Amino acid sequence: MAEFTHFNEEGRAKMVDVSDKKETVRTAIASSSITVNKEIYDQITNNTIKKGDVLAVAQVAGIMACKKTADIIPMCHPIPLTGVNITFRWERENENYRLIILASVKTKGNTGVEMEALTAASVCALTVYDMCKAVDKGMVIGKTYLVEKTGGKNGDFRRENEIL
Amino acid sequence: MAEFTHFNEEGRAKMVDVSDKKETVRTAIASSSITVNKEIYDQITNNTIKKGDVLAVAQVAGIMACKKTADIIPMCHPIPLTGVNITFRWERENENYRLIILASVKTKGNTGVEMEALTAASVCALTVYDMCKAVDKGMVIGKTYLVEKTGGKNGDFRRENEIL
Amino acid sequence: MAEFTHFNEEGRAKMVDVSDKKETVRTAIASSSITVNKEIYDQITNNTIKKGDVLAVAQVAGIMACKKTADIIPMCHPIPLTGVNITFRWERENENYRLIILASVKTKGNTGVEMEALTAASVCALTVYDMCKAVDKGMVIGKTYLVEKTGGKNGDFRRENEIL
Amino acid sequence: MAEFTHFNEEGRAKMVDVSDKKETVRTAIASSSITVNKEIYDQITNNTIKKGDVLAVAQVAGIMACKKTADIIPMCHPIPLTGVNITFRWERENENYRLIILASVKTKGNTGVEMEALTAASVCALTVYDMCKAVDKGMVIGKTYLVEKTGGKNGDFRRENEIL
Amino acid sequence: MAEFTHFNEEGRAKMVDVSDKKETVRTAIASSSITVNKEIYDQITNNTIKKGDVLAVAQVAGIMACKKTADIIPMCHPIPLTGVNITFRWERENENYRLIILASVKTKGNTGVEMEALTAASVCALTVYDMCKAVDKGMVIGKTYLVEKTGGKNGDFRRENEIL
Amino acid sequence: MAEFTHFNEEGRAKMVDVSDKKETVRTAIASSSITVNKEIYDQITNNTIKKGDVLAVAQVAGIMACKKTADIIPMCHPIPLTGVNITFRWERENENYRLIILASVKTKGNTGVEMEALTAASVCALTVYDMCKAVDKGMVIGKTYLVEKTGGKNGDFRRENEIL
Repeated sequence: MAEFTHFNEEGRAKMVDVSDKKETVRTAIASSSITVNKEIYDQITNNTIKKGDVLAVAQVAGIMACKKTADIIPMCHPIPLTGVNITFRWERENENYRLIILASVKTKGNTGVEMEALTAASVCALTVYDMCKAVDKGMVIGKTYLVEKTGGKNGDFRRENEIL
Repeated sequence: MAEFTHFNEEGRAKMVDVSDKKETVRTAIASSSITVNKEIYDQITNNTIKKGDVLAVAQVAGIMACKKTADIIPMCHPIPLTGVNITFRWERENENYRLIILASVKTKGNTGVEMEALTAASVCALTVYDMCKAVDKGMVIGKTYLVEKTGGKNGDFRRENEIL
Repeated sequence: MAEFTHFNEEGRAKMVDVSDKKETVRTAIASSSITVNKEIYDQITNNTIKKGDVLAVAQVAGIMACKKTADIIPMCHPIPLTGVNITFRWERENENYRLIILASVKTKGNTGVEMEALTAASVCALTVYDMCKAVDKGMVIGKTYLVEKTGGKNGDFRRENEIL
Repeated sequence: MAEFTHFNEEGRAKMVDVSDKKETVRTAIASSSITVNKEIYDQITNNTIKKGDVLAVAQVAGIMACKKTADIIPMCHPIPLTGVNITFRWERENENYRLIILASVKTKGNTGVEMEALTAASVCALTVYDMCKAVDKGMVIGKTYLVEKTGGKNGDFRRENEIL
Repeated sequence: MAEFTHFNEEGRAKMVDVSDKKETVRTAIASSSITVNKEIYDQITNNTIKKGDVLAVAQVAGIMACKKTADIIPMCHPIPLTGVNITFRWERENENYRLIILASVKTKGNTGVEMEALTAASVCALTVYDMCKAVDKGMVIGKTYLVEKTGGKNGDFRRENEIL
Repeated sequence: MAEFTHFNEEGRAKMVDVSDKKETVRTAIASSSITVNKEIYDQITNNTIKKGDVLAVAQVAGIMACKKTADIIPMCHPIPLTGVNITFRWERENENYRLIILASVKTKGNTGVEMEALTAASVCALTVYDMCKAVDKGMVIGKTYLVEKTGGKNGDFRRENEIL
């Protein structure tokens, strides 16, 4: 019975140990967006999209996905969230309209909530796409990124340059 | 006992009826991307990221999220998927590197799989972010969009212009 | 090595075989309700509840739970749903207000969707409770029952007497 | 590029911030019930229902759903539960029988467990319906409500009047 | 902008395409077991384990996990199950007792249900461990394997030799 | 209205109260294995299995299932995990090859993580089966058991004898 070398020294996948990290209040804000044509913009703001109130459904989707983050992102630690808020803002881009999504997440735990904020913002954008795709499948989900984080020993992060 | 007007005529949220749509083979391809710095690129390609083999984990995450789409996107119909494939390609962008993600999904069902493909591509990108964020939190997830779809009565969709 | 009697002849739990049942269009409608005081009624209808638009969130919750029915109800068969709709109606009950919830579910499958409709209606009522419980924990969720079902070999069901 | 007003000031949906609430032992008890005809009552108590031991399955369903509460109720905070117990009691109602369900939940966390108790009781009742619906679809799930809660800064709640 | 070679030709992970496979009735039976000491055997059969009726809970767990197979096993196709049954048999092994678990699964779909049967049997054994571990953590889950499968173009499988 | 005896004194199912248990660092290691023929061994180690990199996918599956333990095992308490690591080792068994799987789990919580470690190891083995079953359905998953645990008031556990 010959013994072979051990695996995972060479590193396939691992949920790294965070037992020594301190339980502190941590926050993160992530941003995503989706660009839609005028017809969709008009239908969203007049609430005439057949599947329902687009922004209300997208907000619920983002919050629920935020709570599922550790189930969706394989190496992400499960942490209890203490608050989630998603806000929207419209910007006009020539003949199109861009819905800007900001997801803010808060916890009292021993890892950060960057992934939770990014997942909330992404799922929110995906849900807008789903609600409106019967009108136009050409919508584009914009760049998705971390805006800021606070808490934890590695210091805060704040994006300085704007992302377009 | 006064009766009030019925709700949902004015349309809050609805999973629209697709009973009459035909069960046919349907496919969709969606694209997302993530831009990382040289250090992360080197670590991914040399497989030295502490959390594991980034692209392998991201691929599994995308496929598993694809199967959860109807659980993540509120008004999306649950449909059995018959195949999912995610491919990667690197492009250099000045001093950075962009990982381009293509998610292809196939079903034999009575609604399309656009949302499944978009969700797979998004979660794949989010997972790359998670695996590498200890190195740099400044990574940006690029635009996410439908590349093409086939099957279903509304005809095929093929994006003509490139999205940057 | 003595052999003992087999279990499950005496019947602990079983997901019964439905392979022989026909795949047909099936529908079910279930009803639930929740009685709230005037303050909550005013806040719901004026949309001033701190957690958000109560009926919009409850509707999304009901639809999403409907898709999770086979994951929540142990012996329930998983079936693809083709449509879900939830409607609301207010009734006044002396100094209180009763929100009546109707959940309609449709499928093309080989078992009925009674459980899906009942689960949607229940979760919808539970969500209203959650959204408003900071104002008053005394709200009561009313009776929950099947209103009608169609499709399947056992014939249709239609409740004749009203349930109060 | 014109900027529009921010959303979510007008309040669509929000998982409110509970970071400042104290982590204490909290309990909640909720009640639901289901009224069945004599045939079902006899089959449940003689354990001859085809799908299995109705009360055993219903109890497991209630406990498992209790752990899924934050996944089912959109704005509910995820909290670790430290104990769940579900008890049953039969009452005779003329020619029918009413199964009374009490769900008790305990946690050490910074929000209450009212929703967990209510969800456990509801899902327990729904599961009884599912196990017995082949015999009679006319069963009615009775009123569902909070019986008491303890812990947390808002004081305890104890329902004084009986709910029929 | 240099282009690099495509990935997934070299094969990381893929949910292979089964669109062309026929939708037929398919069955699978898998077996697992768990060996417990006399004290646990006595407590299970006398129903005095503190956490409840071990075999009833294990059976429900196995059936529910069976429905979650595609969510647990990454490259497994989601398929609707039409029936699941789990049976138990005790065998004596010197001073210990072995609970033999058989899980039978049936579907009408385009892939087999081997994984569903194996997952049901495994989770059933794990649940017995969980229910009894306060008495003795030394229990051992026995070998887990496919006993037989029918349906599908690759022909039937029937294990000839006994597995100890 | 006659009252009947209360249930659950006789104990169907209960998630026992752990509120009084201390929150300490706890670890558990579990082992499982799977025996495959030479063809599969060669294909795994040469990475030519059609579904992808078997060990990479199995590792991700084990880690993700570990986080789902309380959702899979009915009476298991939900606890936040702080680290999960899965390692592999091959042993030759005559003409076959045995992949030995070790799953190590860590938490800071008030119950142990034995079930999490056992679930991770089991799902890892099941995933290897799934990835390779197109080559041979005769693979056998070996014995699955707790190797050791530390932390908690009941003292540590360490298996002395080897399990074959």
